[in-house]
Amino acid sequence: MASDPQIKNSNVDVLIIGAGPAGVIAADWLARFTKYGVKTRVVDKRSHKVFTGQADGLNPRSIEMFQSFNIANKIVSEANPMNEVCFWAPNESHGGIERGRRIPDTIPGISRYVQSVLHQGRIERHILDDMNEKSNGTMKIERGVLPETLEVNEELCQDDNAYPVKVGIRQLSEEESRPKLGSKNGEVESGLYKSNLVKDEDDDVEFKPDVPVGDREIINAKYVIGADGAHSWVRRQLGFKMQGEGSDFVWGVVDGVPITNFPDIRCRAAIHSNAGSMMIIPREGSLVRLYIQLNLQVDEGGHVDRSLITPKMLMDQAKAVFHPYSIEIPDIMWYTGYQVGQRLTSEYAKNDRVFIAGDACHTHSPKAGQGMNASMADTYNLCWKIGHVLAGHAPRSILKTYESERRPFAEHLIMNDAQLAKLFSGKPLSSAELNELGVDMKDFENILERGISFFLGTSIEYFNSTATANGRDGRLSSKQELAKNIPVGQRFPSHQVVSQFDGRHYHLVDTMFADGQFTIVLFAGNMDKQVNRQRLQTIAQRLDSDDGVVSKYTPKDRQRDGVIDVKTVHCGGRTNIEVHEFPQPTIYPPGTYNKLYVDDVSYHAGHGEAYKNYDISKEDGAVVVVRPDHFVGLVTSLDGAGMDDVDKYFSGLLKTVPAEQRNSAKDIKVIPQPKV
Amino acid sequence: MASDPQIKNSNVDVLIIGAGPAGVIAADWLARFTKYGVKTRVVDKRSHKVFTGQADGLNPRSIEMFQSFNIANKIVSEANPMNEVCFWAPNESHGGIERGRRIPDTIPGISRYVQSVLHQGRIERHILDDMNEKSNGTMKIERGVLPETLEVNEELCQDDNAYPVKVGIRQLSEEESRPKLGSKNGEVESGLYKSNLVKDEDDDVEFKPDVPVGDREIINAKYVIGADGAHSWVRRQLGFKMQGEGSDFVWGVVDGVPITNFPDIRCRAAIHSNAGSMMIIPREGSLVRLYIQLNLQVDEGGHVDRSLITPKMLMDQAKAVFHPYSIEIPDIMWYTGYQVGQRLTSEYAKNDRVFIAGDACHTHSPKAGQGMNASMADTYNLCWKIGHVLAGHAPRSILKTYESERRPFAEHLIMNDAQLAKLFSGKPLSSAELNELGVDMKDFENILERGISFFLGTSIEYFNSTATANGRDGRLSSKQELAKNIPVGQRFPSHQVVSQFDGRHYHLVDTMFADGQFTIVLFAGNMDKQVNRQRLQTIAQRLDSDDGVVSKYTPKDRQRDGVIDVKTVHCGGRTNIEVHEFPQPTIYPPGTYNKLYVDDVSYHAGHGEAYKNYDISKEDGAVVVVRPDHFVGLVTSLDGAGMDDVDKYFSGLLKTVPAEQRNSAKDIKVIPQPKV
Ligand SMILES: Cc1cc2nc3c(=O)[nH]c(=O)nc-3n(C[C@H](O)[C@H](O)[C@H](O)COP(=O)(O)OP(=O)(O)OC[C@H]3O[C@@H](n4cnc5c(N)ncnc54)[C@H](O)[C@@H]3O)c2cc1C
Ligand SMILES: Cc1cc2nc3c(=O)[nH]c(=O)nc-3n(C[C@H](O)[C@H](O)[C@H](O)COP(=O)(O)OP(=O)(O)OC[C@H]3O[C@@H](n4cnc5c(N)ncnc54)[C@H](O)[C@@H]3O)c2cc1C
Repeated sequence: MASDPQIKNSNVDVLIIGAGPAGVIAADWLARFTKYGVKTRVVDKRSHKVFTGQADGLNPRSIEMFQSFNIANKIVSEANPMNEVCFWAPNESHGGIERGRRIPDTIPGISRYVQSVLHQGRIERHILDDMNEKSNGTMKIERGVLPETLEVNEELCQDDNAYPVKVGIRQLSEEESRPKLGSKNGEVESGLYKSNLVKDEDDDVEFKPDVPVGDREIINAKYVIGADGAHSWVRRQLGFKMQGEGSDFVWGVVDGVPITNFPDIRCRAAIHSNAGSMMIIPREGSLVRLYIQLNLQVDEGGHVDRSLITPKMLMDQAKAVFHPYSIEIPDIMWYTGYQVGQRLTSEYAKNDRVFIAGDACHTHSPKAGQGMNASMADTYNLCWKIGHVLAGHAPRSILKTYESERRPFAEHLIMNDAQLAKLFSGKPLSSAELNELGVDMKDFENILERGISFFLGTSIEYFNSTATANGRDGRLSSKQELAKNIPVGQRFPSHQVVSQFDGRHYHLVDTMFADGQFTIVLFAGNMDKQVNRQRLQTIAQRLDSDDGVVSKYTPKDRQRDGVIDVKTVHCGGRTNIEVHEFPQPTIYPPGTYNKLYVDDVSYHAGHGEAYKNYDISKEDGAVVVVRPDHFVGLVTSLDGAGMDDVDKYFSGLLKTVPAEQRNSAKDIKVIPQPKV
Repeated sequence: MASDPQIKNSNVDVLIIGAGPAGVIAADWLARFTKYGVKTRVVDKRSHKVFTGQADGLNPRSIEMFQSFNIANKIVSEANPMNEVCFWAPNESHGGIERGRRIPDTIPGISRYVQSVLHQGRIERHILDDMNEKSNGTMKIERGVLPETLEVNEELCQDDNAYPVKVGIRQLSEEESRPKLGSKNGEVESGLYKSNLVKDEDDDVEFKPDVPVGDREIINAKYVIGADGAHSWVRRQLGFKMQGEGSDFVWGVVDGVPITNFPDIRCRAAIHSNAGSMMIIPREGSLVRLYIQLNLQVDEGGHVDRSLITPKMLMDQAKAVFHPYSIEIPDIMWYTGYQVGQRLTSEYAKNDRVFIAGDACHTHSPKAGQGMNASMADTYNLCWKIGHVLAGHAPRSILKTYESERRPFAEHLIMNDAQLAKLFSGKPLSSAELNELGVDMKDFENILERGISFFLGTSIEYFNSTATANGRDGRLSSKQELAKNIPVGQRFPSHQVVSQFDGRHYHLVDTMFADGQFTIVLFAGNMDKQVNRQRLQTIAQRLDSDDGVVSKYTPKDRQRDGVIDVKTVHCGGRTNIEVHEFPQPTIYPPGTYNKLYVDDVSYHAGHGEAYKNYDISKEDGAVVVVRPDHFVGLVTSLDGAGMDDVDKYFSGLLKTVPAEQRNSAKDIKVIPQPKV
């Protein structure tokens, strides 16, 4: 087929297969590299995006990720933040449920965002709008497109200019790309056709030799990302195996507006009852989602008869759990059922040319609401790396850090999820039976509470990676003690600072929206002191030199802050220093107002106390390198040794630009101050 | 013409003439009444909306108004907030300018929004998008439409069902509706064609007898709003006169991205120099607007030769003022010139059927950035009243309060503006010459500082009005002492409260987006005490009765909270009371989660201390009636006498619904609590 001269043949830098959460984040990242000529295509076999049902849980870290793309506000304004988890357990005397503890759903202070819920379709919509904007309208999802063949030419894999991956695709007919089993059960929208309880109908859509040649195309890609979900076709082509355990717990899901006298219907409520377990997720508007444990047994790997799972069966079970409270959902919007199991792929990448991401790599219960979060975080990690390699800024070796960073996370996730799922599906209950039966209420709550910290996503740590200098790969160690609350390998925490130029207050990360660049944050210390001004001057000389990291890794035809951006946060009095007293041009490039900040009181939002919150000494200061995905790469000192560390950090990650092609500070015109 | 049977003849509830800031706010308000069958049309003689230049200053009150329409976030995220005003004056030794004081541009704590700047075209865009959504896509602006005739049939004016205003309109050709003098000066966009310095070219577009009949239409309207700007055609048809003073100060305006070494280019800078005065307004992106005092004299009412005002002439003057700093604007985006004068219309309304609003009523200098704010506030005040009259909820008499509320404001505005304009254009300067010359720097700064409080828009007070029970019209007095910081007649200040249902924190006004309804806020006091629960129960009985204000003023076919919404804010512990312990159904209508709030600590945003901030006793509580435009109508006591006041308040504003057509609390189904 590949040799049929009549079949259309095309080249592309990146081909993304699958436009679920993982695929659209990949696309949105790569859209930001279209400015460097990177070409990306996205195909999905379905003709329509998700409209109802599916994932809706967003953890604070995912919202921080949206923030880095500057789309958090749109999403937050539509989402329902969850504030409280209420635990319910059987009352010993009447046997119905009663409220136990309440705890905050997000640990206060850990992020400026909280656990929130928004329908997956809306989230994807906002990401796709951003992709469209950032790619200047050049990228769109090609729907109803089925990949049929995938070949990797291993000999070409070391050649940066080659297209080693060949993917044959076919345009499906409208009929083929619609879910065949139908997604309706009478009037009610059903998600069963996507559930792991039934055989994947799509496996039937296979290579058809007799379709018209015009519907086929061979795409030669430099990179392919398989973001094609739990049944991943890409994964199967590569021969990677899903490893791990299944489980015989079966859960049902129902979405709708309930009529109930249950008092915590607007809280996340974790209910253990004598009739089974349930989880309530309050959603946007007055919508609520119920996760309902079912009295159904399925063997590991087996399938159930989908006709068993009906809206009525799910609601009957919910009513039994709710006793003595009543609940009705007059119009069920969507329902599904699934079996809880934890599995992880044997490999993440083939020759660092074909990657899989999201549910294609890991599956687990939707209970802790991690599926969408974990899937988006995979490609958020991967795609700035691919972008920089394609833009010519980075060597292909950084692609190794995708698996080295994301696999440990997935292992951790699956372990936590297994524990939680077990607890959730265990049959508890009356406090009397506690220790005898498998599950202790206290245990349950404690594990959930500890789990929360992991599930919030803000404590994820990358190690064993050339891109995080936390010393665990023996390459480079940070001076973590200079900024104890900026842990290397974790996401850069944000605190409020004030613009030197206009006194406006900002969250520090809001000054560095993700556009591909690394950021060097110079915590320059107290500029009221001459000695600290002098120190910054010394750093500036190094940064302004043609061997400084900014010049060395930025080609002439890029914006000077396009690869490495330098921001300064000092902690003197804002009005004690004039902007022109900051070293020009690298630290204060003339006409640029987003490089200089101060940890000082603001007019309208108090004092951010950034130095205190980061635990940085106002005398010593610190230098922090923040990666394009807002993870901390390096913490070091504000002196020559520190600048050596910075050099060393980037030398492992970026490609040195030949001397004559460097972006030089000398090209920037500085307007002298008036002499009066 | 009106009798020509071939001319199309149509009826409409409201015809808005002019789609500038005043017109679009009018349209957006009335869009919210389409659900009650109210039909509104908007015509504008220009074929395109504003794209560059014109107003851009938004005061905090205008942003609060956008918040009430739930569009503040969109606008704020694009706008540039202004934080600091820097005063510059001549240095005695070198004669160039030097920085004096810095003050915050918005008084901290007065609003959660600050003075901000965003291009008028973007603001109008967001309002029009909202109009479209709220009218379910039924409303759009009809552009290139010129009104030619306007007649009011006074005999019909007392008849609620009549269409007493006849407006003849004509569809202009594309050529006619484009500004004839052109808006370009070489490559540069010029606003001179709209300036008061040159004769209004549009006055030439007049009644043409020989256009095809198909381009004409007679619109019979119940109400007409003339929002057609400073040269208002509607005002001229009604024979209202603009009264007040002109002035011979001429100012120029330039927009662009400057190259400069002036340190305060991102602050609002008020510069007095030996060469003249200037005001710097930092805008979105790196844009800056310069308001430049010109060395041009124009007689009162006279016009200047527009060829005198060129980009070069403006920049030469700016450079002279800036000495010893340098400034260049390589690409001027837009420029204009105008003459400062203060004028007010003799009347606001004809028979309470035709109203004028915005620049049609009042003109003043753009210096304090009030034009757009004041214009939008006019129709924001007017249109919920028209909406309620047309929906049948309110008698026509409430329309009188438009002029009685807005004229005193305009007088105040014009007085303040005259003072400011004089100070700004005065020739000051070196501190030595201070008292001899007309302007004292201290004076100037003090007046500006006092002016700020007025110009922020948050202290505007309506009195002499049936819609504000501050006793000045002798009708009804508030018990202001029960909530000292909720001044009757001013906008309802907002503080944080927490939802009883899910623990989420809200700004109180964010729980009551403007949809036409009045809101009764019951500050119910400390619900931990039985006596306070009992008191709320007594209030509830009255509200649940068929003679209570909610039932009495709400027809059966309206949502029960569509005319008067009741919210409760208590101050006991949130977890000390269950939701079903609040009186059902009026105070807690089952299935409704946006009525019950508590002044308690939140998980993520501290304690709002609403009672303390409003100065309401936690024992006594208070009742506050908030108007649809978020102005405070009444403050009274949480007892029978207070409820009598509430009755009395609404009796002057709303129409009593006949007993059998009332929306009754008895129709609401309450689910009983389980008995265990
Ligand atoms: C009922 C339910 C509730 C859930 N609730 C939550 C929750 O609350 N929170 C949460 O975070 N997660 C939840 N999840 C999990 C979540 O939906 C997934 O983890 C997440 O969608 C995975 O994203 P993904 O992009 O990896 O894969 P998917 O979302 O599965 O996207 C894969 C995409 O690839 C396409 N595709 C598949 N095969 C091919 C092929 N061969 N060729 C081309 N295209 C292909 C599909 O059409 C699809 O668009 C839930 C899942 C279910 C079923
Ligand atoms: C250079 C300049 C700078 C300014 N800067 C500021 C500022 O910083 N801040 C601020 O708040 N204000 C500023 N203003 C003032 C501000 O632009 C006006 O106050 C404001 O636009 C008035 O709003 P409006 O809706 O009443 O009238 P306009 O904005 O004038 O709108 C009137 C509309 O009616 C239409 N129209 C006119 N006549 C007819 C007719 N006969 N038939 C049909 N349609 C008609 C017009 O086409 C126009 O769309 C500035 C004005 C200028 C000129």
